[in-house]
Amino acid sequence: MNDIDDLTSLAARIAAADVSPADVMDTLLENIAALDADVLAYECINPHARADAQRCAEEIARGESRGPLHGVPIAVKDNYLTADMPTTAGSRAPGYTFAREDSAAVARLRAAGAVLIGKTRTHEFAWGTETPPTRNPWDLSRIPGGSSGGSGAALAAGFAYGALGSDTGGSIRIPASLCGVVGLKPTFGRVSRTGIVPHSWSLDHAGPLALSVRDAALLLNVLAGFDPHDPGSADLPVPDFTAQLNAGVAGLRIGVCRNHFFGANEVDVEARVEQAIADLAALGAQIVDFDVPNLQYGLGAIYAIELASSSAYHDRGLQQQATAAMNDDVRTLVEIGRMVTAADYLKAEQLRTLLIEDFDAVFERVDAIVTPASPVTAWRRGQKSVVTGGVEESPLAASWRLTYPFNLTGLPALSVPCGFDAAELPIGLQIVGKPFDEATVLRVAQAYENVHRWHAVRSPIARSVIR
Amino acid sequence: MNDIDDLTSLAARIAAADVSPADVMDTLLENIAALDADVLAYECINPHARADAQRCAEEIARGESRGPLHGVPIAVKDNYLTADMPTTAGSRAPGYTFAREDSAAVARLRAAGAVLIGKTRTHEFAWGTETPPTRNPWDLSRIPGGSSGGSGAALAAGFAYGALGSDTGGSIRIPASLCGVVGLKPTFGRVSRTGIVPHSWSLDHAGPLALSVRDAALLLNVLAGFDPHDPGSADLPVPDFTAQLNAGVAGLRIGVCRNHFFGANEVDVEARVEQAIADLAALGAQIVDFDVPNLQYGLGAIYAIELASSSAYHDRGLQQQATAAMNDDVRTLVEIGRMVTAADYLKAEQLRTLLIEDFDAVFERVDAIVTPASPVTAWRRGQKSVVTGGVEESPLAASWRLTYPFNLTGLPALSVPCGFDAAELPIGLQIVGKPFDEATVLRVAQAYENVHRWHAVRSPIARSVIR
Repeated sequence: MNDIDDLTSLAARIAAADVSPADVMDTLLENIAALDADVLAYECINPHARADAQRCAEEIARGESRGPLHGVPIAVKDNYLTADMPTTAGSRAPGYTFAREDSAAVARLRAAGAVLIGKTRTHEFAWGTETPPTRNPWDLSRIPGGSSGGSGAALAAGFAYGALGSDTGGSIRIPASLCGVVGLKPTFGRVSRTGIVPHSWSLDHAGPLALSVRDAALLLNVLAGFDPHDPGSADLPVPDFTAQLNAGVAGLRIGVCRNHFFGANEVDVEARVEQAIADLAALGAQIVDFDVPNLQYGLGAIYAIELASSSAYHDRGLQQQATAAMNDDVRTLVEIGRMVTAADYLKAEQLRTLLIEDFDAVFERVDAIVTPASPVTAWRRGQKSVVTGGVEESPLAASWRLTYPFNLTGLPALSVPCGFDAAELPIGLQIVGKPFDEATVLRVAQAYENVHRWHAVRSPIARSVIR
Repeated sequence: MNDIDDLTSLAARIAAADVSPADVMDTLLENIAALDADVLAYECINPHARADAQRCAEEIARGESRGPLHGVPIAVKDNYLTADMPTTAGSRAPGYTFAREDSAAVARLRAAGAVLIGKTRTHEFAWGTETPPTRNPWDLSRIPGGSSGGSGAALAAGFAYGALGSDTGGSIRIPASLCGVVGLKPTFGRVSRTGIVPHSWSLDHAGPLALSVRDAALLLNVLAGFDPHDPGSADLPVPDFTAQLNAGVAGLRIGVCRNHFFGANEVDVEARVEQAIADLAALGAQIVDFDVPNLQYGLGAIYAIELASSSAYHDRGLQQQATAAMNDDVRTLVEIGRMVTAADYLKAEQLRTLLIEDFDAVFERVDAIVTPASPVTAWRRGQKSVVTGGVEESPLAASWRLTYPFNLTGLPALSVPCGFDAAELPIGLQIVGKPFDEATVLRVAQAYENVHRWHAVRSPIARSVIR
């Protein structure tokens, strides 16, 4: 199966009865059994995975089709509720019980025929960018990013063909960037969050991590749509996100925000992203440099909103001292969130409104924006500092700087691999679009990927698995 | 001019060149000069009032018409910015400077031809229901209600033909009820708040106080409409609110919420409102009793939201110790607002969502809801307690109990006079409608007013003015 390098090609081969879903699942489960003890991407394996895949194989043999993902194995971040597997949200804190029912996104995957491989590890309650204890398949001494680190690692290791993540400040895009896969945070409202353990309602986004841009488009086709049970869901038409993938970037105006997003990145990251911008220009895009005011206040705003809404969600846990059982980093965040005042929260929301207006104005002049996805590549477990723009800072502080602005603004944003640093660690290019214009984001990403096939380079773990 | 008993009749007589706006203004200003030292309804008189009225008189003499309020004198609550008068928001606290420019509502009044008489007193920063030092024209030993107490008193005293108020927890409807005039809080988003000194953005509403239901409809016609400068403004069509005024209530389903709104009112208030409900039934309305869950949590929710957003607005004043110059009641509220946590604020907003859903469900079964507007009639200045439902409580606590649910839910709500208590103090009937269905609210009010002409009974002060 060496010519199957992404979900799209696998789905086509399965639909053509050329490959059996049962064989695909068997191979995946063998690889996971052999190697996930080193990677620790999965929290649990679906006990029904083989049976479900076998059932799909039989359906296909009978000529039945259940949808575009029929028989395709998908991994699910362990903060999405699932009927057939427990949910932990990465926590051992007592008093949290999660229903055994499918989240809206999982239900959509199943309706499209997907088979769930298992639940992938998340940073506890999706509140962090390291995802201990998961390792990065590019270098097992390094973290995979987070909070959807298990999903990123599972894809990079060859343990899944697609995965669900969630993104409150960068939690899809950061592990995608650090693991060398594609991660798409759709527009706020595009994909239902019903049945995802809440972190911060107004910042939480659901979306896919994928092996290729076209896979991200195909998964978004399945996941997108209005859900009256999610108060943030938008009742808007859903286009076919694969339709314009190969329309190219000739004539597109691609913006580069020269403040905030540049000047405080690792040297190799900044160099690779500048090269990617030049590559897009060479493909016919018109590059438009600009600055956005008010971005320097964004960190305070997202901290106030994220801390406050997280502590509101954990109110009962706080009252019952359940936070004592959380890891220190998450416990601290949940506990200090109680100290955010409502007045500060409202000022944060006002700043957010200004930022949304600022980016609205930018999008009158450009069709998409590109930035680095993360200022840093995967850091070592326990590493205390990184050097960005010649200055030392904590990797945690650096990691979400370029992603959180698009949680505040709700704009669609994708990370696509754009090369490697000197240590052969992946670097991600972030592409940002207008509200609900994921189609253009995907189109720019596909144009880049068509020419620069970084996603086809496999991690050391993925190179060692059976295919 | 004894047959001119409201703004509608005055506007018609002025338009017919039957009455001169200059003469009307002269009479008003004489009455104010003679009697407002007792009532204290006005914070300041417009120095251009006579000249503006004279100009209108000349325009009309030339056959020019500037709109439906041409030459009509209107009073403006002193938290609306005005180009030709200072704004104080009822405060002497230092460091607050208010622009000398017209608020959106004032600009609409002027564009419709209205002449501004002056600015009416407000409880400091619109944060209270007493409006010291204004007196109630029905009994000068009593408060007029608030915070739009100056507007209510000006109308009840015969010092204006229409007035602007603002309503965050009942501040239009409470003084309307206690002064025996009509007060309309339109749907959240219906009338622009641009240029009104903010109190609590998500609860603040702008609207008219009026001498009759048809006056309220005419004023809403002028005031309503989308304003992109008000983030809460709704871009929706504006009907002619006078068109269906006399359609009657036969066949309309009128709901009576039997929890929260009944059982804790003064005896005369409850009796008069029950009579009004019977009167509406006699006019052909179908009365539907119901209960609404979650209302018992509404007070905590509106307190959290109102305190928090008020303190966010006053953040600079708090930092500069300007609150020391505020009256004790308002200073306390602004200062304790800093202590509301963001987590509590978010929980309050969640309760609000539940209440909105509760009332949405009710409005599938009814066309309008009626309740008392205030559990109590005008209390004496300094009075510490009232008896409601047989229990003693503070008049401040009682005063907004029946109005604030419709600030939380944003539903349109109007107070129309429905009789008097044993002390000959006015009682108000509150009529509540579906979102943006002010037309039905006004229609029910007009049907009632057509039969029960309580608004035509004049206060002792109004009986003593020149007409």
